[in-house]
Amino acid sequence: MNTLQTLAIGIDIGGTNTVFGIVDARGEILYKGALSTGKHENIEDYIDELYEAIKPAIDQVGGKDLIRGIGIGAPNGNFYKGTIEHAANLKWKGIIPFAEMISEKFDLPAALTNDANAAAVGEMTYGVAKGMKDFIMITLGTGVGSGIVANGQLIYGHDGFAGELGHNIVIPNGRLHEGTGLRGSLETYCSATGVRRNALEMLEDHAKVDSLLRQFDPADIDSKVVYDCAIQGDPIALRVFEFTGEILGRAFANFVMFSSPEAIILFGGLCKAGDLILKPTKENMESHLLPIFKNKVKIIFSQLNESEAAILGASALVWELRKSVSTDN
Amino acid sequence: MNTLQTLAIGIDIGGTNTVFGIVDARGEILYKGALSTGKHENIEDYIDELYEAIKPAIDQVGGKDLIRGIGIGAPNGNFYKGTIEHAANLKWKGIIPFAEMISEKFDLPAALTNDANAAAVGEMTYGVAKGMKDFIMITLGTGVGSGIVANGQLIYGHDGFAGELGHNIVIPNGRLHEGTGLRGSLETYCSATGVRRNALEMLEDHAKVDSLLRQFDPADIDSKVVYDCAIQGDPIALRVFEFTGEILGRAFANFVMFSSPEAIILFGGLCKAGDLILKPTKENMESHLLPIFKNKVKIIFSQLNESEAAILGASALVWELRKSVSTDN
Repeated sequence: MNTLQTLAIGIDIGGTNTVFGIVDARGEILYKGALSTGKHENIEDYIDELYEAIKPAIDQVGGKDLIRGIGIGAPNGNFYKGTIEHAANLKWKGIIPFAEMISEKFDLPAALTNDANAAAVGEMTYGVAKGMKDFIMITLGTGVGSGIVANGQLIYGHDGFAGELGHNIVIPNGRLHEGTGLRGSLETYCSATGVRRNALEMLEDHAKVDSLLRQFDPADIDSKVVYDCAIQGDPIALRVFEFTGEILGRAFANFVMFSSPEAIILFGGLCKAGDLILKPTKENMESHLLPIFKNKVKIIFSQLNESEAAILGASALVWELRKSVSTDN
Repeated sequence: MNTLQTLAIGIDIGGTNTVFGIVDARGEILYKGALSTGKHENIEDYIDELYEAIKPAIDQVGGKDLIRGIGIGAPNGNFYKGTIEHAANLKWKGIIPFAEMISEKFDLPAALTNDANAAAVGEMTYGVAKGMKDFIMITLGTGVGSGIVANGQLIYGHDGFAGELGHNIVIPNGRLHEGTGLRGSLETYCSATGVRRNALEMLEDHAKVDSLLRQFDPADIDSKVVYDCAIQGDPIALRVFEFTGEILGRAFANFVMFSSPEAIILFGGLCKAGDLILKPTKENMESHLLPIFKNKVKIIFSQLNESEAAILGASALVWELRKSVSTDN
């Protein structure tokens, strides 16, 4: 390993936007930028624009010789193959050898995994999971993502796709997830979208209960609106978070009995609900655990800055995966 | 490591009986024996009897110098601490430093884990999981046990108790598990005891449907009776296996989306039901998986001899855990 190479590039690919940055080993972001993902039908054009956007930054921090590699967080990212495979919210269909394409364009080693796995590596490198060998990262955003660390390593599984806990079935034959066709998955209840659906369902089921939520056009009710109403004491909005926490906590109990983590770390928009979501989640996790697991597992909110976490996580892949990265070089 | 030490002792502690054996590195059992677990109120007496039973065998195979160590499979066994903790079906209450006691008595290094973890190590060393780096072992006996291997390592978790998949909640607020107080856990439906309960419930729910099972005293209906009736084409007995497979398959889908194993390996009494249990399990697993996981994961029956598997699994801990064992020596 070249000891000059003290910087890493992190790229996080979202359906709408891509964010990127150059990060040092302490997690300081020296440079960051963003571009549109969605406007590029053609993957080559996208990579060209990415290169043009990052190249000046590389020069600015002192040149390519200082860069150890490029870490990429992407939906349906496969760590073993460096591919993005059939990502529903990206325009590029099929299997894209993304890490290889980036590596060739930039002439730097590249590693890729899904965004939640990258977030887990970020927490382990720069965040609240520093020093932990067993933890589960759960991202509560538009969807529910996860990254699982056991024995100090990310669990990628046999095919590189392990850790899709958002798609665990939590209510048999429950609510339909339109994206996956599965019924009763965690994501349908406990994502930001799920919270919205929980609210709409409860308003209908309790048509006679007065609620601040009824002042909103149903189309405008999102997890933020529910939160705003809940902190004003609205009974339906409060019940929405309680219900969401019940489902989430029971799912967490199952996860704990799988890998017995030291902590479950929460990241993403829903974390803003704070104790409203944390309290019922914790209570319901505990009540569904075997005695040997009770009162052992912490549930912690990530402390990373939301706008920077994706870049940090992606960049951290470069340090974490030093060995597999260096064989590419 | 002493190259003379080519043998390992395996001890499997069950609630009723303890079986033990001396095993070579190829999985040949050179000597085996058994004693009653249940009759010993006092742990020291039990260890004395175990020592008296195994000592002549050690001499017979050529003496202690040939023995690398002792592997122990035990209910609620904690790998990190070598303890048996609050095991419901053993008479010794509290936390027992069992590995340490055995190690002192025999003057040999000892490693301990729960029986399902030991079974997983056994499959990896001598069985159908040879060469696999990611698999899940599920034991379907009186209870449902599990051992999870990811990245070629057993997942012990932060506290040494990971892999209690039998206690995953599969039906929210479902059937009460009297041993744990949890409702709707996998074990209440998919253990041999669960199959019995499924049958009794179905006989009651379909009181007008004729069934061979009605010829039995309800107290005598067990998973074997249900199997015998099912192979004669009895509709209720057939439905019992279908239902059991539905629950098991859905749970397996959740496990697959956690650690993405190459295979799920089944062991224990219920495996005798063969395709009756395998077919609905596989179908229901597949139908609850995200597309990226479909048609990838094998469900395989263990091929190890049932009476020998527990000894092999426990003994295999000695080879698997070479490093941690050798530090004790």
